[in-house]
Amino acid sequence: MALKHDPVLPPHIGGLKAGPRNAITDVADVTVGHATLADGPIQTGVTVVLPHPGDIYRDRVPAAATVLNGFGKSIGLMQVEELGVLETPIALTNTFSVGTIAQAQIRQCVAANPQCGQRLPTVNPLVFECNDGYLNDIQAMAIAEQHYRNACAAAGSTFVQGAVGAGRGMSSFGVKGGIGSASRYTPIANGFQYTVGALVLSNFGRPSQLTLAGRRIGPSLETRLASTTQAQNGPEKGSVILIIATDAPLDARQLRRLSLRAGAGLARTGSVFGHGSGDIALAFSTAYTLPQDVGRAMPDIAMLHDALLDPLFQAVADSTEQAIVHSLWRAATVVGRDGHHRQAFLDLMADYIPAFSEQSL
Amino acid sequence: MALKHDPVLPPHIGGLKAGPRNAITDVADVTVGHATLADGPIQTGVTVVLPHPGDIYRDRVPAAATVLNGFGKSIGLMQVEELGVLETPIALTNTFSVGTIAQAQIRQCVAANPQCGQRLPTVNPLVFECNDGYLNDIQAMAIAEQHYRNACAAAGSTFVQGAVGAGRGMSSFGVKGGIGSASRYTPIANGFQYTVGALVLSNFGRPSQLTLAGRRIGPSLETRLASTTQAQNGPEKGSVILIIATDAPLDARQLRRLSLRAGAGLARTGSVFGHGSGDIALAFSTAYTLPQDVGRAMPDIAMLHDALLDPLFQAVADSTEQAIVHSLWRAATVVGRDGHHRQAFLDLMADYIPAFSEQSL
Amino acid sequence: MALKHDPVLPPHIGGLKAGPRNAITDVADVTVGHATLADGPIQTGVTVVLPHPGDIYRDRVPAAATVLNGFGKSIGLMQVEELGVLETPIALTNTFSVGTIAQAQIRQCVAANPQCGQRLPTVNPLVFECNDGYLNDIQAMAIAEQHYRNACAAAGSTFVQGAVGAGRGMSSFGVKGGIGSASRYTPIANGFQYTVGALVLSNFGRPSQLTLAGRRIGPSLETRLASTTQAQNGPEKGSVILIIATDAPLDARQLRRLSLRAGAGLARTGSVFGHGSGDIALAFSTAYTLPQDVGRAMPDIAMLHDALLDPLFQAVADSTEQAIVHSLWRAATVVGRDGHHRQAFLDLMADYIPAFSEQSL
Amino acid sequence: MALKHDPVLPPHIGGLKAGPRNAITDVADVTVGHATLADGPIQTGVTVVLPHPGDIYRDRVPAAATVLNGFGKSIGLMQVEELGVLETPIALTNTFSVGTIAQAQIRQCVAANPQCGQRLPTVNPLVFECNDGYLNDIQAMAIAEQHYRNACAAAGSTFVQGAVGAGRGMSSFGVKGGIGSASRYTPIANGFQYTVGALVLSNFGRPSQLTLAGRRIGPSLETRLASTTQAQNGPEKGSVILIIATDAPLDARQLRRLSLRAGAGLARTGSVFGHGSGDIALAFSTAYTLPQDVGRAMPDIAMLHDALLDPLFQAVADSTEQAIVHSLWRAATVVGRDGHHRQAFLDLMADYIPAFSEQSL
Repeated sequence: MALKHDPVLPPHIGGLKAGPRNAITDVADVTVGHATLADGPIQTGVTVVLPHPGDIYRDRVPAAATVLNGFGKSIGLMQVEELGVLETPIALTNTFSVGTIAQAQIRQCVAANPQCGQRLPTVNPLVFECNDGYLNDIQAMAIAEQHYRNACAAAGSTFVQGAVGAGRGMSSFGVKGGIGSASRYTPIANGFQYTVGALVLSNFGRPSQLTLAGRRIGPSLETRLASTTQAQNGPEKGSVILIIATDAPLDARQLRRLSLRAGAGLARTGSVFGHGSGDIALAFSTAYTLPQDVGRAMPDIAMLHDALLDPLFQAVADSTEQAIVHSLWRAATVVGRDGHHRQAFLDLMADYIPAFSEQSL
Repeated sequence: MALKHDPVLPPHIGGLKAGPRNAITDVADVTVGHATLADGPIQTGVTVVLPHPGDIYRDRVPAAATVLNGFGKSIGLMQVEELGVLETPIALTNTFSVGTIAQAQIRQCVAANPQCGQRLPTVNPLVFECNDGYLNDIQAMAIAEQHYRNACAAAGSTFVQGAVGAGRGMSSFGVKGGIGSASRYTPIANGFQYTVGALVLSNFGRPSQLTLAGRRIGPSLETRLASTTQAQNGPEKGSVILIIATDAPLDARQLRRLSLRAGAGLARTGSVFGHGSGDIALAFSTAYTLPQDVGRAMPDIAMLHDALLDPLFQAVADSTEQAIVHSLWRAATVVGRDGHHRQAFLDLMADYIPAFSEQSL
Repeated sequence: MALKHDPVLPPHIGGLKAGPRNAITDVADVTVGHATLADGPIQTGVTVVLPHPGDIYRDRVPAAATVLNGFGKSIGLMQVEELGVLETPIALTNTFSVGTIAQAQIRQCVAANPQCGQRLPTVNPLVFECNDGYLNDIQAMAIAEQHYRNACAAAGSTFVQGAVGAGRGMSSFGVKGGIGSASRYTPIANGFQYTVGALVLSNFGRPSQLTLAGRRIGPSLETRLASTTQAQNGPEKGSVILIIATDAPLDARQLRRLSLRAGAGLARTGSVFGHGSGDIALAFSTAYTLPQDVGRAMPDIAMLHDALLDPLFQAVADSTEQAIVHSLWRAATVVGRDGHHRQAFLDLMADYIPAFSEQSL
Repeated sequence: MALKHDPVLPPHIGGLKAGPRNAITDVADVTVGHATLADGPIQTGVTVVLPHPGDIYRDRVPAAATVLNGFGKSIGLMQVEELGVLETPIALTNTFSVGTIAQAQIRQCVAANPQCGQRLPTVNPLVFECNDGYLNDIQAMAIAEQHYRNACAAAGSTFVQGAVGAGRGMSSFGVKGGIGSASRYTPIANGFQYTVGALVLSNFGRPSQLTLAGRRIGPSLETRLASTTQAQNGPEKGSVILIIATDAPLDARQLRRLSLRAGAGLARTGSVFGHGSGDIALAFSTAYTLPQDVGRAMPDIAMLHDALLDPLFQAVADSTEQAIVHSLWRAATVVGRDGHHRQAFLDLMADYIPAFSEQSL
C-alpha cells in the first residue's frame, strides 16, 4: 500500500502482503518519532524507534544485530550482543552526534530510574548513525539532547518518511535518501501469521549501482546525474542502518539470523556493502520482554522452531528492500551547506516510474 | 565471454569486464579439477580448487571466510579464521563425504611431508559440502579417498561447469544446479588492475525465488515446475558454497571483507540465506604465500589500502552472481536415485532466454 | 571428593562444593564412555559424552562454544553456533581420526533415523580432537568407526579418568595428561541450586607453565624433566578440549557465556592459550531439549536471568581447573611409539603432593 | 622493577624480565596521561594512552580487541574490528562520560584535520569505561571535554598509577583499584627481542575471588572487609579494561590473538569475567603505521610468523596480571560520595605482603 502522498505508486517488492501502513509500525506497539533540523547549512535530525510504550530499561526487548560493514560509529552493539536485549529506544542520527544522543539516553533513563548507575546497573545507550556531511554542516554539531527528547515525544504509529529526522541530510545513489519503512505479513502457517517491519536510514550507494525492483537503472541514473554540477564521483562515504521488528517469538540467536537477512534486501538494491559504508542491521521482537529486575519472573513462552524461520527471512529481505525504495521515493529535494543539494529521486527519474508501477501491480 | 558450448549466451552481470575464461582460473596459478560419479542412484563427486601448483602445506595461502548461514557440515574454517591461511587444496563434495575427503587430504599431506603430525604440525583439512541427497543416494557414501586424488590430478586452468564433480547431484531453484564459475577485472587504478574469480557449488533456492540478472522469473519457473511431477514444495534443504580468488595483495582481515560480498551476489539471485541452507563464502589471495617453516622469511609486500577495496567488492558480487547464473546455464538434466530427476534450466526456460541475452549484450 | 584410587588427595579448587562423583556425570542424565587402544605404538582412543539417554538427533540439546585458540581440527562447531544445539553425542579423539568418527556418527544417526539426509535434514557430526602424535603413531590412523560405537556402548555415569579413551596418548606440561572431570554445585539461591560438570581432554602446556592450585610449580617440574631424556623443549603442539554440562535452564547465548569461563579455569593452570594449541570450550544444558521435528511443541520454560549467572560462571571456572588437575592426577605413565614415554605426574612430583593436599582440605 | 614510592615490593609475576619502567611506556613512543577530578562526591577522571606522538588519524596504528564480557558501554570497537586500526588516542573514563569524551575526540581530530567528516572520512572515537558509581557521583556527569584535552597534554612516558585519571573512583575486590601498568621483554629469538606493555583500569572482582601471584587470599580479604561497614556483598558491577602495546610487527589478526591472552592474566587474579563486568582487551602494535591518505604508500614490512607468538602471549598474560597487581598496590584510599570509601589494599593487607615479596624475588 502506498502512502497517501505518493504521486506515483512505488513498485511492490516480492510476493508477500504488506500491513495496513506498510511500515514498521504495523508491528504492534512499535512507534516512530522524528526531530528535524532544517535551517540553511543545518540539515540533520534524530529519529527514534520505540519497541513498546513502557519503560524499556525495566522491560527489555530481545534483540540482536549483524554488522555487514563496520566502518561506522554506532554505539551500544557490544552489550546487545552479550545480553541479547535492548534497554533504550533505538536512536538514529548523524555521525558526530552519537555522543550527545547517548548522553540524552542516559539522562532519560536516570530520570525515570533514579538508581540507574548506582544500586541498579548503568544503561546501555543504543545510537546508530550515518554521515550527512554532504548536505549538513556536521562539524557544527547542531544536535542537542533536547532533540532526542523531542523525537521521543513525537513518536507514534503514523510517521513521515523521506527527508525527515535522522534522514534529513542523507543521500543515496547520488540522490536524496533518508528514512523509509515497510512491512510484510508471513503466510499463515500452523495457525500463526507474523508481521515483520523494516525502517531504514539510507545514506549509501553510488549512482551506477542502483537497482530498483530488480531493474538496473544505475547507469541511466548516473548519466542523468553527470549532466548536473552535483555529480559525485568519489568513493562511497555513506552508510545504511536497517532496523527490523517482528512480533514472532524469537530469542537473540534467532534475531541475529533475521538481522543478517536485511543484508539480502540491501544487496538487491545494488549495494555491495561498500568499504566506507557503515552497514548495520538490528532486529528485535515484541513478543515478550525480559525484566531488568532479577526478582521478577522471566517469560516462559516457547520460541518459534528454527525450521519455521524461512518465511520471516523472506519478509525481512523484502521489507528491507521495500523500505529502501520508500526512502528514495519519499525524500524531497534538499539544499544544504555551501549550496550542496540532493535532488528527489522521483523528480530526476519521473519518466522511469510508470513502467515500474505497472510491473509491480 | 560464454563457453564454446553455451547454446545461448548467458546475461553478463554488471559493468566490469570478465577475463578470457570468465572463470576462477583467470586468476593466475589457480586450477580446478573434478571427479564425477554418475551411475544410476550414485550422482555425486568431488571438485578441488588449487590456489597454486606447489605444496600448499609448505607455502600457505592467505584466506578468510564468512558464514552466511551455518547450517552445514563443512570443516576447516575454525583454523582458517585463527591463522588466516589455507594449507590444503579446497575440496567440495556431498555432506556425508566430508570425513572421507578430510582423511584423503591428511594422507596426501603426510605423503608429501612425512613429518606432518609429528615434528611438523598437523594439517588442517578444508572440505565444503552441500547435500545432494535428492538425486544422489547419499547414504551409500560412494565417495572414496581416491576420488579426491583423481580430482587433484585432473586439475587445470580449463574445466567443465554444470553437473560435474561435486556439482553432479546438486539442485537449485528446483532445477539442476552444480558448478559455476566466472571472473571480473577491476578498473585500472593507480596503475594496477586486479582479477577476481568466483567458483560456486549451487544447491540452494526455491523456484519462486529465482531472480536472473535482476528479473524475477521465479514465479514463472514455479508455475512450470508445478506442472511436472517433480515439483518440490518443501522447505529449502540445500546450500551454496562460494569460493573467491584474487591476485590483489590482501591480508586475512581484508579477505574476510571480500568473502562477505559474495553474499551480495548470492542475494541478487533471490536467496535470503534460507534456514536449511549452509551458505559459506571463502576468499583467498594468490599475491603471496606464507611459509609453514618458521625458519623461512615472511613476505614483506605492501597490502592494498582498504580505501581501494570497493572495485574488488563489486567484482566479488558480480562474479559470484555470474557464477551462479553459469551453474544454472551449464548444468544438464540429471536422473538419479528412485527416479528423481532435475531438469536443465535452459531446457525448461528456453523461451525466456533470448530477451536476457539481448538485454545483457 | 577423591576417586577411590587416588593415592593422595588432589587439592580442592575454590570454595564451591563438588557433587558425589566430582565428575561431569553429576549433572543428571549425562554419561561418559571410552574406547581405548593401547598396543605398542598405538596409544589412542575415543571418548564420548552423552547429554541424555535418548536419541539426540530427535531431542536436541541447547549448546554453544567458545574457540579460545582455533589451531585445531574439531568439526561441527559452525552449525552449533548457528542453531544453538547438539544433535549427536560429543566425541573426542585424536587429530587424524576426526573424519572417521564423523562418518561413524552419521551412520549411527542414519541407522536410528532412516530418513536422515533424505526427508529429514542431515546430521551434524561433533568431534573434538587433540594431537597425541608424541606417544601414538597418529599416521597409522588406527581408530575405526567401531571404536566410536564401543565408546557409546560403554557410556555410564561412572567412568575412568586419566590415560583412557581419547586421553590415552595425550600429554600436558611434559607429563602424562588425558581425561579429567569434576563438578560443582552453585549455592542455593531463589530456592534453586544448579550443578555444573566439566570434562577435559588435556594435551596442552609446557612444563615451565604449570600452576597447581595457584602454586607455580612449573619451574620445578621443568628442572626435573630436564634431567630425563624425554625433556621436550619445543613449541607447544598440544590442545585442550573443555566440555561443560549444567542442569540450569539456559539458552545458547547464555551457554556461550558459560563456555568462555572454562577459559578462566584453564588460564589458572598456567595456559596462555598457546599458538599451537587448539583450545575449545563447549557448554550444554540438560534442562530441556529442542525437538528436531517441527511438528512437536517447543519447550516453554523460563531461562535463568542473566544476573544470576555469576555462581555458574564460578562453578565453570572451578570445575574446569579441577578437571585439569584430575587429568594430571589420574593419568598413569604411558610408553608409546619409538620408545616415547610420558611419566605420571604423581610419580614425578610425589614429594610436592602432601603440602597441596593439606592446603586444600 | 618497583616504583620509587612502593612501600613494599609487589611480587614479580612470571619468569620474563620487565622493562626499565615496568610500564606500558617501555614500548617505545607510547605515552600515558591523566586528568583527575577529586572533589568531595566527584572522584573520577580521564586517562589516555597515545600510541605515538604524531597525528593518529593520519598515521593509524594496527589494533584489535577481544570482548571477554560485553556488559559495557565502551565505543569504537566495531570499526577497529572492521579496519584493524586505531585512529585516535585510546581514552578511558567513567561509564556516563563516554559520549562527552567521544565528542572531545571528534573535535580534536577536526581541529587538526579540518576536512574530517567532509572531504576526509569521519573519525572513529575510541573510549573505554568502567562504572565508578560507588565512589563517584556518576550521575553528576562531571567530566567535560576539556578533561580529555588535559589528559592528552599531560601525556608522557612517566606517569602515576593507582587512584588517578580514569582510575580515581574505581574499586577492585572490595578495595581501591584503578590504573596499573607493567611490561615484559620476550626472550631474544632469531636475533629479535620484543617489548609488551599492559595498562589496566581495574574495577572488577569480589573480595572472595582475589588471587595474588597465585595465592588465593580472597577469603582472608573478605573476612577483613566483613568487619568494616563498607563490606560489599552484592553482585559484581565493575569492569576492567586491558590495554596491550607491543613493538612486534603484527597485523590485526595477530593482535586480536594477543588481546585474548590478556584474559589469561586477568583470570589468574581470580576473575571469572563476571556477568556485570565489562571486560575488554585491546592490543596495538607500534611497529608500523597505516596511512589514512590512500595516496601514501602502505608499509611493506614482514609480519612476525605466528609460530613465534608464544613468547608474546606469555608476556601479555604476565604483564596484564602484573598491571592488575600494580593497580591494587598503588591505589591510595579514596573517600567519595555519601561517605563511601575504598581502602588501599596495602593498608588493609599489609601483614600479608612480606611473604609475597620474598617469594617473588
